[in-house]
Amino acid sequence: MNRRMVLNTLGHIAMAEAALLVLPLIVSLIYNEGCAAAFLITIGICLIVGVILNLTSRPGTKVIYAKESFAIVAYAWLMMAGFGALPFVISGEIPSYIDAFFETVSGFTTTGASILTDVEAMSKGLLFWRSFTHWIGGMGVLVFVMALIPNMSDRSIHIMRAEMPGPEVGKLLPKARDTAKILYLIYIVLTAVEIVMLLAGGMPFFDSVVHTFGTAGTGGFGIKADSIAGYSPYLQWVIAVFMLVFALNFNLFYLIIIGKIKSVLKSTELWCFVTIVAISIGVIAVNIHKMYDSIEEVLRFTTFQVSSIISTTGYATTDFDLWPGLSKAVLMLLMIVGGCAGSTAGGLKVSRVILLIKSVFREFKKLLHPRSVRIVKLEGKRVDEQVLTATASYFVIYILMIISIFILLSIEPFSIETNLSATLACFNNIGPGFGTVGPTLSYSEYSAFSKIILSIAMLLGRLEIFPLILGLNPLIWKKR
Amino acid sequence: MNRRMVLNTLGHIAMAEAALLVLPLIVSLIYNEGCAAAFLITIGICLIVGVILNLTSRPGTKVIYAKESFAIVAYAWLMMAGFGALPFVISGEIPSYIDAFFETVSGFTTTGASILTDVEAMSKGLLFWRSFTHWIGGMGVLVFVMALIPNMSDRSIHIMRAEMPGPEVGKLLPKARDTAKILYLIYIVLTAVEIVMLLAGGMPFFDSVVHTFGTAGTGGFGIKADSIAGYSPYLQWVIAVFMLVFALNFNLFYLIIIGKIKSVLKSTELWCFVTIVAISIGVIAVNIHKMYDSIEEVLRFTTFQVSSIISTTGYATTDFDLWPGLSKAVLMLLMIVGGCAGSTAGGLKVSRVILLIKSVFREFKKLLHPRSVRIVKLEGKRVDEQVLTATASYFVIYILMIISIFILLSIEPFSIETNLSATLACFNNIGPGFGTVGPTLSYSEYSAFSKIILSIAMLLGRLEIFPLILGLNPLIWKKR
Repeated sequence: MNRRMVLNTLGHIAMAEAALLVLPLIVSLIYNEGCAAAFLITIGICLIVGVILNLTSRPGTKVIYAKESFAIVAYAWLMMAGFGALPFVISGEIPSYIDAFFETVSGFTTTGASILTDVEAMSKGLLFWRSFTHWIGGMGVLVFVMALIPNMSDRSIHIMRAEMPGPEVGKLLPKARDTAKILYLIYIVLTAVEIVMLLAGGMPFFDSVVHTFGTAGTGGFGIKADSIAGYSPYLQWVIAVFMLVFALNFNLFYLIIIGKIKSVLKSTELWCFVTIVAISIGVIAVNIHKMYDSIEEVLRFTTFQVSSIISTTGYATTDFDLWPGLSKAVLMLLMIVGGCAGSTAGGLKVSRVILLIKSVFREFKKLLHPRSVRIVKLEGKRVDEQVLTATASYFVIYILMIISIFILLSIEPFSIETNLSATLACFNNIGPGFGTVGPTLSYSEYSAFSKIILSIAMLLGRLEIFPLILGLNPLIWKKR
Repeated sequence: MNRRMVLNTLGHIAMAEAALLVLPLIVSLIYNEGCAAAFLITIGICLIVGVILNLTSRPGTKVIYAKESFAIVAYAWLMMAGFGALPFVISGEIPSYIDAFFETVSGFTTTGASILTDVEAMSKGLLFWRSFTHWIGGMGVLVFVMALIPNMSDRSIHIMRAEMPGPEVGKLLPKARDTAKILYLIYIVLTAVEIVMLLAGGMPFFDSVVHTFGTAGTGGFGIKADSIAGYSPYLQWVIAVFMLVFALNFNLFYLIIIGKIKSVLKSTELWCFVTIVAISIGVIAVNIHKMYDSIEEVLRFTTFQVSSIISTTGYATTDFDLWPGLSKAVLMLLMIVGGCAGSTAGGLKVSRVILLIKSVFREFKKLLHPRSVRIVKLEGKRVDEQVLTATASYFVIYILMIISIFILLSIEPFSIETNLSATLACFNNIGPGFGTVGPTLSYSEYSAFSKIILSIAMLLGRLEIFPLILGLNPLIWKKR
């Protein structure tokens, strides 16, 4: 284990967080808010820790392997959330550190689950920081640092693999750093386009930026008690469409840029995603059509909610906790499916679902024709057996995690519906669930113990389980 | 596809069912009940269908492959349940055929989910038949026929594989037929021992036989409105212990018979099963200890319910729907785990859970040391990669089925708790769930549509999904 390189990188991350905190500091200064001091203190702490880590751990070699990358990712995310929670506590707006940690983990992991009971009472600076964590966490903290700092590591693809979602991380360009740059460029352009489109619909500038951060990271933190319900139908449609856009594999946008439109249209994952969205909208629209006045309303609410849940954003335009059982069951299924691999969305990911179903079909065929050899293809290419085994194992541990988190939450006096939906909503990084954690309510009712469990669940979901567990395993620090 | 052999075997099954129906006929004659006529008519129908099938389809060759075995198992189970429902309808005691079909499927699949709202009003003959289906279905209808009819097929191991639960069906003896005989012999001896022990505790003869059938098949149909709650603590302990006994791999009993006690004590699956049971009892006992008066009561209720749920029997001695959330969550987990492979229990099976967890651990190690080659061992032997892949695929389709059944049930106006527990309780062949399908209630509230869905769920669970889906697939009838 190259400990120095791990600690050195963590130092970079601490300093990067200090830099990122300058933005909410500026916001709080513009609005002349008292939380500016809290940001300044936090920036100071991040800088001191960053400098100390960097000075005490100059790496002899920059080579890292899988081990180091897991440790870097696991500790970097814990550190980002640990420091990121400080402004909330120091400013006194979220007095409990556990609550502030939950809120910040929820931000960085793009979950959007909140313990706030009155979000409109928060200062603008902290609201901005809360949403900004979505934007940073969406594409990945380390991918961001990699794109900025030249030659951070000679094998940074390991870090990308550990931080980026999906069964296989494709390199767009030979160098991981260039891939990171391209991805962030696409991310920034799409973010800008959404801000402009929201402004064009008459949304105030602050609201536009904050909601775009929430959409781009597929996070879901809002600034109103009724989430997006108070905005015009046009604005609701814009956000609905952009939630879907940010749930797509970013490789597709790269293919569009380099003119390979045909490859985009042939993408299996894209078509499966579109089909799942269309069927879900159809089923829910039929199921809830009597609850609303016009067809436009039914379609708008349905499209928005399907888009919000499958993209694992979690915004709401209506209280979907009041929808009938079938609609809620479909939404729970979408929570599990999640967005496409290589997007900012959470969940199992569409391409994993495809691989799992294809493996099952292969098993059916094997049972009938035991001696035949069959390969599984995705996007026209043969999928390596190793990837299939890894995907199946991922699914097993994914379900084991859901069961474990659910059982731990069951100590709380809430209904099975509440605890199960809280588990799915946090672990898949959606945010709101049903019952006591429904879209009009918050996670404030949960005990400190459950808030810690759910914070871990959010991190496990965002980092896709393995990096977090392996990275925090003290055994990997031992041997070289 | 050897169609003739399939139809011929189905003919044998129909005649076997006629023979089995003689027992409840005798019971109804002893008690001088009107349902005797219903049994006679059903026996007649079974015989006619059996004879016609046998005369019209004399097989040229008795060789069958995987395909044929799936078709035989799938259609045999449907036919057994289809005919087995007739006495309930003809006697008028369950007027709706769908209700009677649900009840009979629930019997043969050893689920024990009932649509009866007043079980004590039923005639003895039908109560006997209902519980007898548990006993037949527990060890397998076809295994029974195989044990009886000499040389039914030259490759009957395929049929055993399709009907017996667990990831791998071990042959105890070189010939499948001899294995079937040994298994049924053990089954009959254990059944006799339980009957004697219940009689010794003062349970009436009829009650002893019926409850032993329910225990042996891990079914759970009772004859009292309060299940086992009205019997003495001694009788409750006897049933609790026997539910666990019948959830063990029958191979272990064979090893005991041939004197290999050491091999039994080394069994990984046995120890895992014992550990899961012990931990569950511990957690629930602590969780519910304030609800009951004495430690003996707490331990008795806890042990009975843990034993009843993990063995997928479904008997109850107290209304566990009133237990706190944590206990219910643990019971839901036990519903999924189920008994050991090669037992009469349902669920995922302990050995599958072990294989799945071992595969995940291997994946962890692979991520840290990508080039290492690792094998998975169970019971001291290397597990073939094919079995691991098949187990993973089974888990994927298992979860997909749970999600699908749950979504279809969500059309009903019941809570998520009710629908989810009904899904788990039927698919894993337990019986009672929580809420509207709790231990003191029944499945009578569900619509005809949902009853059909749940009947399919019970069959899918008992036959472990693949044989039913493949056997009913019309494509396999086509080519030779």
